[in-house]
Amino acid sequence: MQNLDKIMKPRAIAVIGASTKAHTIGSDIMKRLQEYGFKGKIYPVNPKGGVIEGLQAYPTVLDVPGEVDLAIVVVNAKFVLSTIDQCHEKGVGGLCVISAGFKETGKDGAELEKALLEKVRAYGMRCVGPNCLGVVNTHPDIRMDGCFAESLPERGGIGFVSQSGALGGGILNILKDLNLGFAQFISIGNQADVNAETAIEYWENEDDVKQILLYMESIQNPANFRQLATRVSKKKPILALKAGRSAAGASAASSHTGSLAGADKAANALLAQSGVIREYSLENLFATAKVFANCPIPKGDRVAIITNSGGPGIMATDAVSEYGMKMAPLSDATKENLRSFLPAAASVKNPVDMIASAPIEHYKQTLETVLADDNVDMVIVIYLPFLGLKDIDVARAVMEIKAQHPEKPIVGVFMTKSEFFSQLSDMQVNVPFFMYAEQAADGLNRLNQQRVWNEKPIGTSPVFEVNRDRAREIIMQSASQGREQLTTRESIDVLDAYGIRVCRSGFAVNEDEAVAVADKVGYPVVMKMTSKTTSHKTDVGGVRVNIQNADDLRAQYRDLIAKLKEKNLLDGLEGVIIQEMVKGSREMVCGVATDPQYGHMVMFGLGGVFIEVMKDVTFRMAPLTDVDVDEMIRGVKAYKLLEGARGTTPAQMGQLKECLLRISQLVSDFPAITELDINPLIISEKNGEGIAVDGRIKVNLKKL
Amino acid sequence: MQNLDKIMKPRAIAVIGASTKAHTIGSDIMKRLQEYGFKGKIYPVNPKGGVIEGLQAYPTVLDVPGEVDLAIVVVNAKFVLSTIDQCHEKGVGGLCVISAGFKETGKDGAELEKALLEKVRAYGMRCVGPNCLGVVNTHPDIRMDGCFAESLPERGGIGFVSQSGALGGGILNILKDLNLGFAQFISIGNQADVNAETAIEYWENEDDVKQILLYMESIQNPANFRQLATRVSKKKPILALKAGRSAAGASAASSHTGSLAGADKAANALLAQSGVIREYSLENLFATAKVFANCPIPKGDRVAIITNSGGPGIMATDAVSEYGMKMAPLSDATKENLRSFLPAAASVKNPVDMIASAPIEHYKQTLETVLADDNVDMVIVIYLPFLGLKDIDVARAVMEIKAQHPEKPIVGVFMTKSEFFSQLSDMQVNVPFFMYAEQAADGLNRLNQQRVWNEKPIGTSPVFEVNRDRAREIIMQSASQGREQLTTRESIDVLDAYGIRVCRSGFAVNEDEAVAVADKVGYPVVMKMTSKTTSHKTDVGGVRVNIQNADDLRAQYRDLIAKLKEKNLLDGLEGVIIQEMVKGSREMVCGVATDPQYGHMVMFGLGGVFIEVMKDVTFRMAPLTDVDVDEMIRGVKAYKLLEGARGTTPAQMGQLKECLLRISQLVSDFPAITELDINPLIISEKNGEGIAVDGRIKVNLKKL
Repeated sequence: MQNLDKIMKPRAIAVIGASTKAHTIGSDIMKRLQEYGFKGKIYPVNPKGGVIEGLQAYPTVLDVPGEVDLAIVVVNAKFVLSTIDQCHEKGVGGLCVISAGFKETGKDGAELEKALLEKVRAYGMRCVGPNCLGVVNTHPDIRMDGCFAESLPERGGIGFVSQSGALGGGILNILKDLNLGFAQFISIGNQADVNAETAIEYWENEDDVKQILLYMESIQNPANFRQLATRVSKKKPILALKAGRSAAGASAASSHTGSLAGADKAANALLAQSGVIREYSLENLFATAKVFANCPIPKGDRVAIITNSGGPGIMATDAVSEYGMKMAPLSDATKENLRSFLPAAASVKNPVDMIASAPIEHYKQTLETVLADDNVDMVIVIYLPFLGLKDIDVARAVMEIKAQHPEKPIVGVFMTKSEFFSQLSDMQVNVPFFMYAEQAADGLNRLNQQRVWNEKPIGTSPVFEVNRDRAREIIMQSASQGREQLTTRESIDVLDAYGIRVCRSGFAVNEDEAVAVADKVGYPVVMKMTSKTTSHKTDVGGVRVNIQNADDLRAQYRDLIAKLKEKNLLDGLEGVIIQEMVKGSREMVCGVATDPQYGHMVMFGLGGVFIEVMKDVTFRMAPLTDVDVDEMIRGVKAYKLLEGARGTTPAQMGQLKECLLRISQLVSDFPAITELDINPLIISEKNGEGIAVDGRIKVNLKKL
Repeated sequence: MQNLDKIMKPRAIAVIGASTKAHTIGSDIMKRLQEYGFKGKIYPVNPKGGVIEGLQAYPTVLDVPGEVDLAIVVVNAKFVLSTIDQCHEKGVGGLCVISAGFKETGKDGAELEKALLEKVRAYGMRCVGPNCLGVVNTHPDIRMDGCFAESLPERGGIGFVSQSGALGGGILNILKDLNLGFAQFISIGNQADVNAETAIEYWENEDDVKQILLYMESIQNPANFRQLATRVSKKKPILALKAGRSAAGASAASSHTGSLAGADKAANALLAQSGVIREYSLENLFATAKVFANCPIPKGDRVAIITNSGGPGIMATDAVSEYGMKMAPLSDATKENLRSFLPAAASVKNPVDMIASAPIEHYKQTLETVLADDNVDMVIVIYLPFLGLKDIDVARAVMEIKAQHPEKPIVGVFMTKSEFFSQLSDMQVNVPFFMYAEQAADGLNRLNQQRVWNEKPIGTSPVFEVNRDRAREIIMQSASQGREQLTTRESIDVLDAYGIRVCRSGFAVNEDEAVAVADKVGYPVVMKMTSKTTSHKTDVGGVRVNIQNADDLRAQYRDLIAKLKEKNLLDGLEGVIIQEMVKGSREMVCGVATDPQYGHMVMFGLGGVFIEVMKDVTFRMAPLTDVDVDEMIRGVKAYKLLEGARGTTPAQMGQLKECLLRISQLVSDFPAITELDINPLIISEKNGEGIAVDGRIKVNLKKL
C-alpha cells in the first residue's frame, strides 16, 4: 500500500464541495488553505462552477485542468462514493473525507463506510477519514492547512494523530501558548483506512516529525500497533493519551464514535511493551511534549536543582524523589566552586539555594558549574520574582547557557506572572519553562523513561520444544464433547505438554486406583476431585491435603464420595487426581485473559486468597518476550517474596520466566484458548521451583 | 494570649527601619502601604527623621505622636530586641518582624530568637516572624499591604499562611491570573510566636476568610494543630501543601511498624484526621481554592457532564470515575426534555453531547435541564471552540445560569486560547473555569471530600477500664533492669492488662513446667522461646507450632535447648511461652511507631510475611477516635478478607476496633512507649476474634 505522501505532501489539492457560503466547511477549508499559503495548486470543485475564494471552480474533479494529488471531500455522504470514482478516474492518489454520515451514525452509515473502504482499496488510494477535521503539514515547502479549526497551526516538530476531530481543533488553540507546533497533523476520524498505525509508520522516516503524539479512544490492530510502535519509539518518542479508561468512559466511547474501546489494562500493557509513553491528561501530554521538544535524552537519572528560594526547592526535591529519580550528589569540586562566588548564606548542596538576592550572573555561573559536574544528568532551574530582577532576563540567561551546553536537559520553573509565558510564546525558546516544580519533575521523569526504553533491548520470544499434538488432542477431545471448560486433569495435561512444571500426579477412578497412584507419587499427597459439572472444587470439599498414608487416603476418599452424594453432585465426578504435596508458603498465580479487542493478555502475580484482595499482578500482551517476563516478575510487590525474604528459598527466576514464556507460546499456538489459570503456582521451599498445582483452561469452541 | 487584631487590623502602623533608599525593604514596605491605600495611619520611624514617602519620620517609635497598634520591624537583627522594648513602652500590641538573622542563621540567631520570644510573651504582645515577608489584609476598611512582594494583593476570600516568604511573594503574582485573592495573608517566617495554628484559630471566626490555605514545611504542635483544624475545617475548608515529604528519610527502625512509618505518613494521618485537604502541588492547591471560592458544597457525588464534543466528554468521564465519584444517571424526564430541543445526533445520556453545532441557547437550556435533575449533584460544562461561537459568550451564559442556580457546583472546562483566561481574570466570575477536564474533576472531587468530612462525626475516644497499675509494674520492672525492649512475655502481659485479647498462654522455665502449662492451655499448643538477647525468634528456630501432645512437647523443648546451645544463645533464654494454637489463616498487624516530631502513630493492616512486601497498612495519630479506627480498618485492602472472603468467618469488627482503641489508650497512658508490634493478630477461624499471638513493646527509658 502506498505511503501518505499524496495526502501529506500534495502538489495540488482539489476541494470537492468547495463553497462560497460563509461558515460552511466548504468555505472554511478553502479559506484556510489560502490563508496559510499552501505552496501547491488549489482547485475548488463545485457543480455550479464560478469563482470561490478568488479561484476558478470546476463542476467536477474531472474538469480540473492539472494533476491532483489530494482531494479534500466535504460533499454530502451520499455523494462520496461517486466522488471517489471520479477521483480515481482523475488519477487522484489521496483522499481526506471530512464529510460525516458514516459509521458514527449507525448501521447504514457503517455499510456506506465499508463500501468507501472497498473502493479506496480497489483503487489503490489512501484515505483519511471519513468524519474528520482534516490534515495539516506545516513544512515551509508545503504549508497545507486542510482543516476547519479556529486557529492556524504553528510550525513545530510534533506529528499529531487525533481520533477526536474537535479535540484536534482545540489543541491547535492551545499549542501556541506552550511554544509548541505541529510538523504534521492527521485527524483520523472514523479511521476507515488511515489510522494511528499508518501515521506512526509514515512518520518513522519523516525527519520533520521529531515526536509523535496520539489521542486515541481505541487501537485498531493491537498486534500491528505494537510491532510498529516498538520500532519507531526507539527512534523518536511516542506519547499517547488513551481515553475511555473507565468502564463509564468506555461506554461513552462506544456511544460516540462507534468504536469499541477495550479493557484499559490491555491498553496499558500494550503501550508499555511498545515503548509508548502514556499520559493521562492533555495537560501532561503537552507538558511532556514541551520537554521533548527542547531537551536531549539524558545519560542518567540524577537531577540537580538550582533555586533562588528555599520552599520551591523543597517542593522540587519532593517531586524528583516521588518520580523515582535521584537527587544528584554534587562533587566536592562543584561545591567548592559554587562556594567561591555564592554568598555565605547560600546552600551549595543540591538543591543549590542561591538565595533571594541572586543576580543573573549567579544564575549563569551556578548553572554552568552544575552542568559541568559529571554527577549531574539533568537540571531544574527555579526562579521566584524578587524586586530588581526581571523574569524574562533570567529566562534569557538560562537559554543562553543552554545554547552553549545542549547535551544535558535543563527545565525552568518560573513562578511568575502569566505575562511571562505569553512573552515566551512569541519567542524562540530552547528550554521548557513551567510555572510549577512538579510539572518540571514530571517532564524530566518522562525523559528518563525514554532513556530507559532506549537502553532496553527489544527482547525476543524464544520458541520452546513442546508437545503441541498432545495439547491439541486434549483440547479437541474436550471440544468434541461440547465442553468449553477443560477439566483440571485436562488442563494440567495441556500445561504439561507445553513443558510447564506441574506437580507429579495421577488419575484414579476408585479407591484402590487412588492408593496405587499415591504409592507412585509418594506420600504425603493431595487428593482433588475432577468433575465435568463442578468447577469450584474447594466449595464442595473436593480438595483434601496432607494425606499421610494409604489408610488416611481411603478414609478421605470415602468421605468425599459421601459428601458429593449428599449434594447430588456425584454424577459429574470423573475421578480424583492424586498429587505430590508441594511444600511452600508462597503462592503465585499465572494466567491468561482475553480481551475481545486486544487479544491474549498474560498475568503474573501473587496468588492464593490474595489475588483479588491485593491485586498484586502485572499484565503483558502475548506474545511475551524475555524482556516482558523479566518486567512482569520484577513488577509485582511480591517480587521480594520471590527473592527469598525471611529465610525462604529464593525462587528460580529463570524457571518462572520460562513458565510465562511457555504459557505465551501455548496461547499463541491455540488462539481459541480464552482463559487460563494456574493458581496456585507454588514456589517450592525445597528448590525454589514454581510448580503448577492447579490449572484451569477454557476454550472458545467457535474459534477451533 | 490576645488574638491577632492588632497585627491584622491595625489602626496605625509604625514602620521601624523605614528608609528613603530605593530597593530596600524599608522603602518598599512604605511604598506598598501607601500604594495599596492603608486606611489607618502610617508612621515611618528612622533615627535620622526627615520625610519618607511624603510622611514625617520619627527617630524612635516613642516619638510617634499617636497610638500605634502594629510595628513592622525591618531594622538590623541586633537592634530588634531594643526596638521591642520601645514598642512595649509605646503600648504597641502587634509586631511583624521582617528582619532576618535569627534561627535560620544558626546557634547565635536561635538565641536571639529565643530572647525575642521571651520579650514578646512577657509584654503580652503577638509577633509575626522574624525573617518573614510581612502581612496583608485586603478588607476595604483596612487595606494593609505590609509585604515587600512584587505585586499588590488582590481582594478575595483566602486566608493564606506561608512558611516560605519567597513563595508567598510568588503566589501573589499567580493568584490574579486565577481569579483568586486574599482576605488575609501571613508570612510566618521562623514562626517564633505566630504560626499556622494561630492563624487557623484567628480565622475561625473571621467571616472575611472563606477558606484557609497553608504552605507548611513543618507542623509546630501537632496535637494542637489537630484539635484546632478538626474544629475549624468543619466551618471552612482548610487546604494544605505540606512540603519536605522526601526530606525526612526513614530512620533505622527495629519494629515492623517503625519500618513502615515515617514523618510524612504521620503528617498525612494528622491532616486526614483533622479534615485538612492535602494537596501535593501548588497548581492543585490553587485549582482547589478556585473551586471552593466559586462552588457550594454538593449534596452528593453524582456528576453530570455537558459537552459540545465527544473526546473531552470521554476524558472527563474517565477522570470522574478515577476520582471515585459517580456519573449521574439522568432521569428519563431529563433525557426526554433534552431530546425535545437537542438535535438527533446529540447524545442525551450522561455525558450529554450537544455536538459541535450547539449554540449558546443549547448550553443554557441543557445546563438548566440537567441542574433540575435530582440525580445530579454537580455539573461539568465543556466547551471546545468551533467557528461561530465565542468562548467568552458561552462562559457568560454558564455564569448567568449559575447565578440563578447557586445551589449546585458547576465547573467549566474551556479548551480554548489563554486569552480567554486572561479575559476572565479581569471579570467577576462565579464559576471556576479550567483548560482541562482532569482539573475540573479534581476540583469536584475536593468539594466532595469536604462534603464527606462535613457529614462525618468528629468521633470520640472512649476510655476503657484497664489494669494500668499492672502495665506500669511490668514496664518499670523491665526498666529497672535497664531493658528498653520488653520480653515477649512482658509485652503480652502489658497488652493483656489493657484488655487486648491475647492468646491463652503460660510461662515455663523447664520441660516439666512447660508440660504443666500446656495441660492448662489445652493442646494443640505453640511453644515460643523468650529471651533477653534474641529478639527475632523465628530466625533461631525459637517458635514451634502445632504441638499435639506432651511427648511431642518434650521432644521439641529438648531440641530447642540443643539448638540454642549450639549457637551460644542459651544464656539469654528466660524460658518458653506455651500458647493456645490459634487457628486462622488471616494474619493482621497492629502497632505503634513514634515520630520525634509528631508523636505516636498507630498502624493497622495485613500482617505476617506480607507486611513489608504488600505494605497494606493504614496509620492514624494517637489518640484514636472511634471514627479513626473505623477508617483504619476499612482503609486496607485486606478489609475484604476481614469481611469473610472465600467462606472464612467474618472478623468481629467491633472487637478489632476496640483493640486499636485500647492500644491508643495504652500509649497515651505511657508516652514512654516508643514502639509496639502485635504481629500477627490472628483472626480466629472459630469466631472471628482478633487474637494477639505475638507482641513486642519498646520503651524509652529516659521518658519514664
